[in-house]
Amino acid sequence: MADAFDWGLLEPAGALGASAGDDRVLAAMVAVEEALTGAWAEFEGADSSSAPAFDVAAIDRARLVEGARGAGVPIIALVEQLRDQAGDAAGRVHRGATSQDIVDTALVLVARDSLARAGDALASAADVIAELAVRHRATPVVARTLSQPAEPTTLGALFATWLDAVVSAQEALAALTTTGFPVQLGGAVGTGAAFVRASGRDDAPNLLRAALAHRLGLADPGRAWHTDRGPMLAIADASARVCAAAGRIGRDLALGARDGALRPASGGASSAMPHKQNPVDAVILSANGLRAPGLLATVHAAALSADARPAGEWHAEWQAWRGLLRVTAESADVLAHALADLVVDAPDVHADQADLVAAGSVVDAAVARYRRKADQ
Amino acid sequence: MADAFDWGLLEPAGALGASAGDDRVLAAMVAVEEALTGAWAEFEGADSSSAPAFDVAAIDRARLVEGARGAGVPIIALVEQLRDQAGDAAGRVHRGATSQDIVDTALVLVARDSLARAGDALASAADVIAELAVRHRATPVVARTLSQPAEPTTLGALFATWLDAVVSAQEALAALTTTGFPVQLGGAVGTGAAFVRASGRDDAPNLLRAALAHRLGLADPGRAWHTDRGPMLAIADASARVCAAAGRIGRDLALGARDGALRPASGGASSAMPHKQNPVDAVILSANGLRAPGLLATVHAAALSADARPAGEWHAEWQAWRGLLRVTAESADVLAHALADLVVDAPDVHADQADLVAAGSVVDAAVARYRRKADQ
Amino acid sequence: MADAFDWGLLEPAGALGASAGDDRVLAAMVAVEEALTGAWAEFEGADSSSAPAFDVAAIDRARLVEGARGAGVPIIALVEQLRDQAGDAAGRVHRGATSQDIVDTALVLVARDSLARAGDALASAADVIAELAVRHRATPVVARTLSQPAEPTTLGALFATWLDAVVSAQEALAALTTTGFPVQLGGAVGTGAAFVRASGRDDAPNLLRAALAHRLGLADPGRAWHTDRGPMLAIADASARVCAAAGRIGRDLALGARDGALRPASGGASSAMPHKQNPVDAVILSANGLRAPGLLATVHAAALSADARPAGEWHAEWQAWRGLLRVTAESADVLAHALADLVVDAPDVHADQADLVAAGSVVDAAVARYRRKADQ
Amino acid sequence: MADAFDWGLLEPAGALGASAGDDRVLAAMVAVEEALTGAWAEFEGADSSSAPAFDVAAIDRARLVEGARGAGVPIIALVEQLRDQAGDAAGRVHRGATSQDIVDTALVLVARDSLARAGDALASAADVIAELAVRHRATPVVARTLSQPAEPTTLGALFATWLDAVVSAQEALAALTTTGFPVQLGGAVGTGAAFVRASGRDDAPNLLRAALAHRLGLADPGRAWHTDRGPMLAIADASARVCAAAGRIGRDLALGARDGALRPASGGASSAMPHKQNPVDAVILSANGLRAPGLLATVHAAALSADARPAGEWHAEWQAWRGLLRVTAESADVLAHALADLVVDAPDVHADQADLVAAGSVVDAAVARYRRKADQ
Repeated sequence: MADAFDWGLLEPAGALGASAGDDRVLAAMVAVEEALTGAWAEFEGADSSSAPAFDVAAIDRARLVEGARGAGVPIIALVEQLRDQAGDAAGRVHRGATSQDIVDTALVLVARDSLARAGDALASAADVIAELAVRHRATPVVARTLSQPAEPTTLGALFATWLDAVVSAQEALAALTTTGFPVQLGGAVGTGAAFVRASGRDDAPNLLRAALAHRLGLADPGRAWHTDRGPMLAIADASARVCAAAGRIGRDLALGARDGALRPASGGASSAMPHKQNPVDAVILSANGLRAPGLLATVHAAALSADARPAGEWHAEWQAWRGLLRVTAESADVLAHALADLVVDAPDVHADQADLVAAGSVVDAAVARYRRKADQ
Repeated sequence: MADAFDWGLLEPAGALGASAGDDRVLAAMVAVEEALTGAWAEFEGADSSSAPAFDVAAIDRARLVEGARGAGVPIIALVEQLRDQAGDAAGRVHRGATSQDIVDTALVLVARDSLARAGDALASAADVIAELAVRHRATPVVARTLSQPAEPTTLGALFATWLDAVVSAQEALAALTTTGFPVQLGGAVGTGAAFVRASGRDDAPNLLRAALAHRLGLADPGRAWHTDRGPMLAIADASARVCAAAGRIGRDLALGARDGALRPASGGASSAMPHKQNPVDAVILSANGLRAPGLLATVHAAALSADARPAGEWHAEWQAWRGLLRVTAESADVLAHALADLVVDAPDVHADQADLVAAGSVVDAAVARYRRKADQ
Repeated sequence: MADAFDWGLLEPAGALGASAGDDRVLAAMVAVEEALTGAWAEFEGADSSSAPAFDVAAIDRARLVEGARGAGVPIIALVEQLRDQAGDAAGRVHRGATSQDIVDTALVLVARDSLARAGDALASAADVIAELAVRHRATPVVARTLSQPAEPTTLGALFATWLDAVVSAQEALAALTTTGFPVQLGGAVGTGAAFVRASGRDDAPNLLRAALAHRLGLADPGRAWHTDRGPMLAIADASARVCAAAGRIGRDLALGARDGALRPASGGASSAMPHKQNPVDAVILSANGLRAPGLLATVHAAALSADARPAGEWHAEWQAWRGLLRVTAESADVLAHALADLVVDAPDVHADQADLVAAGSVVDAAVARYRRKADQ
Repeated sequence: MADAFDWGLLEPAGALGASAGDDRVLAAMVAVEEALTGAWAEFEGADSSSAPAFDVAAIDRARLVEGARGAGVPIIALVEQLRDQAGDAAGRVHRGATSQDIVDTALVLVARDSLARAGDALASAADVIAELAVRHRATPVVARTLSQPAEPTTLGALFATWLDAVVSAQEALAALTTTGFPVQLGGAVGTGAAFVRASGRDDAPNLLRAALAHRLGLADPGRAWHTDRGPMLAIADASARVCAAAGRIGRDLALGARDGALRPASGGASSAMPHKQNPVDAVILSANGLRAPGLLATVHAAALSADARPAGEWHAEWQAWRGLLRVTAESADVLAHALADLVVDAPDVHADQADLVAAGSVVDAAVARYRRKADQ
């Protein structure tokens, strides 16, 4: 695609967010159509070998883009191509489904995989922070509030607050895992009537949806949720929580680099000042933390659905929602990198016994919370 | 206060959101200080009758407002007045605490009570919707997608999507209940060192925090979370979910009033057209659904904390966060009112058996989900 | 009003934003109704002494609030009371108008006055900054980029960037002055047909609108703009520009207080650390800078009007829009205070001649731009 | 680039927004570096034929992306490649400049061209609307407010409100043209000291900036504005105004398609219902109108600059800001298409003479305003 809009020029950690990119979304759309076709074959008792395996690489993307301009969604142009690929099974491709079934389920699939990777990165980050917190449990520093020196604490207690932030973010992601990634399958207006019509069986909507969920490893929500954007909001909210936690640490990393206690082992270069070592990871974390709220606001504004599919809101959701996945994946990975790259230059500060005791308890509590989470 | 900024002139459902207003926040601040003073008395083995009961009505609010301009927070000016009230117990008032302990805990207290009431209103709304869904299980209507007539469904299936939205919102609130409303108690820099210093006991921070939580009926988070805004984000996200669900129904109510199938029994008057019956509840629900995303964005932007208290972010959180509580309380109450006030004028539409069967299943699934939720 | 939602408890600079509060909005609503009544009298050639002068203090606010819940707007309940006050002129009160005429015009009136005051405060701030820039034209400091020491500059050049920000904000406000504050007058559906009907004259809509504008000192836009929210967006955008400029300086003030070069003469107290001097003004400026974007987003989302009055968007605009006025008024005033209160502790830094020359030119350019603006 | 993040799969009107895509941004970055190199040659009195003409196609994009991850910006990796291309002129490439000079100026260049095209599309749209307004000047319809039938108006008056919205958007864009698209050139910390140092001349910063502006056809702002994001905010605000105006018409187009008075000649197909004609343009316009506010909020949040370059805010601006350009370009083009494609099916409605007269005046005023704008 010579005309790709965004190949990473303005996204310094773009490669890390590729798990939410168009290539992955397309692959997921194809996977959903393939799973639905297979579910139909299974439902009809067909030979399982007859279910087609689609070739993503063969899809003509320009046709998808052109088709999306005409129809508002790329699915019609995709289904045409998949039916061509399917041969005798063409009749089962997309049968009874609507574009939103495919787009929603594909996006959920992308989210599951992308957030799983983000979760791994958060876990790596937490491991490093926990180790830092323990190591610097009794290293005094002066804490600042409202930019001013306040009272002594320890570097360990500072790291404990980071650990709390990361574990809170992990918990936000973990809250999604059980039923948080549901398939969407409701047909034209969410009732699945076309599945009944096509099969002559009243239980077709429920059975096909369950089979689709099983094949994709997603949850069966027991319903279509075309207009109840709750599942999308839950994923978006959890993603934004990750960006906030990572961004909050990014702020401290940048201030630590300012004040001198923290610095990146491998700082970034400057085009004007070759000697300079910039805390690039901290900058990206802070930037993504600033970007997430606007994306989240759009996703929430887009949740004001209407009818069986609204005239704009659903379309408004797509880019902001997967944009959140992108910055989330980036922030989790960059956070893990930033911590692995962190050099601590402890200042020489006096602290009372009370300060050390209290700060030590903060470390203990955060590390215990981290261990409970890590042991789950 | 002659100069109240907002006494409801521009907030049509303002009275319903009063549970998040300044009067309630002040009462909560006083309750927190009182509970902390009591916790200190208990911790020190003092006669429990010696703990003061503060008089909120006696607080000079103008002094609070003036004090907030000078200090950035009203707590210093509040503590002065409470110490005057406390007599011999003055030394225990606010001992070891910082302003953020009081503000954060007070806001969480306000949220717990305000969202509990919102939850009740959602439950009432769900009861009515479930009844409507069952009653109109087989009443055919033509569903629209992208504003156009699509395929037949039933009014019951439409109501089922509303029920799903409300139950999703209830689940979002319910996810907060176990540990979702934590006290904040960390002292100047989050370690509670001043509690150790004041008491000479290493366990003072943990014991006082636990006692505070117990006295207020809030959760003990086992830590201070001054800089990890996770708990505030979780409450904000859940609140915004309620606004989205109610707003989404508001959109359908307005469109139903447009198309003629749904209308309010008691419509709102017009200053220009006395004969008109406006769907005021639907308008408020939609408006609040549009207001929540911007508030949520601010709360998330404010989560980029730094140091032991950031130079702006924490202050930026207050009004947006409790603004979310306000519109949430309003939306939940208005939703319950709108549904109790709903008149259904079913159009005469033909539907196939497949449409009716499929739509009936949608109703059954939503009602079953509702009943599981109601039985919890 | 015992139940005022917001009397300033959570708004440290709240008194400074009172110019956008409900009292002022109500006074403006009454002024608009009075001006319209007077315009009708003039139009009908009545004795000008017959036009009523309304008594704002006599308005029963509880009735307004109650009326707003029923009708979605407080205007109907207001008009009833004004008609009672008007005696024989009651028939001219609100004649032909719709609620939106009154609310929109009143809000524009509030904006004009509130932003005029903000403009004065910005001018004061600019005066101080210009003086600082000149005084410290050759005081070397090391500039930071991405938190790291970069190259020498001067304090004067730093202040010059602040001056540029303030002058840019002033220009944004100045762009509104000519036609930026228009009356709204279109009647029920924006055509003013009721004015024609009531008067029997085809030119009534245009004449009454022009007269209303004249009486209120607002612009006559030559049209009703019920659904074209351009004028409201222009005011909101300019307001947000002020908050951004002030917030950007707030960030530098906080960092200056961190690094030691800048500090407030009268810092804010701390409830936990009485010795501390907090840069409260900087905190408020930064906080308001963080609050404005979410408010602006809501105002823009609310601009997606529909029909002759949308079912939610217009209502969603009110609080966010005047919330922007509030934080703008506050930020402008706090900025002026912060600068008047600023103490400069210049560090001892070496700079090359090239640095000094270049930094001096920056000061000269900014001061020249400021003077051109001040001379307008 | 096999890994392009966004090649249009989720952006139905993506091709229309390509003017803000990475290819265009890269081309603009190269144009800026080329102009700066040329400006240096001119400044030094070198043979103008010695200035290199860079080959954008030869740039290794993967190196840019990789470099951006390391340095936070792609400019260092770009400059290396341009210096290789420049041969003997390598020493002049990027001399004295900083990454922000290139990125900011390139983005402004992209905005100028992209918004110019959007302006053309708006003008086309306005032409069609004006013609529609005149043609249907006396075609009665019943206007709705708050979703309910209110009073008669005419289709012409409805179109006049659209025309007002478009002309307001055009005025917002026009306000940018004089000085709205400035070059950025300030070197490492905004003072241009490196230009002085490299040239030995005190006037180098001003002369080079003026020459750069001249070569690129941009305004010379007389200063560097690294930290005063006023120019970027002005462009963003104007862009969002376009999206709001187009989105507001999109809402009416969708409702018109719902109610039957308006419909697209070439509606979009449905994957589930082949017979359906979806108002795809209206959907895209509404969706983009919903997307712009969140992007705008991010741009405003990113304006809270600090130091001579902030640790996150500037980076946070890029994608949101040019995302606004994208949806703006799309919305303007889609609006022009939607209007050219519009079919009017006027209902049979009665209106009084007063309604017709008043509505006619509305048309006259809007068309007169349009003509004044078109004649400029």
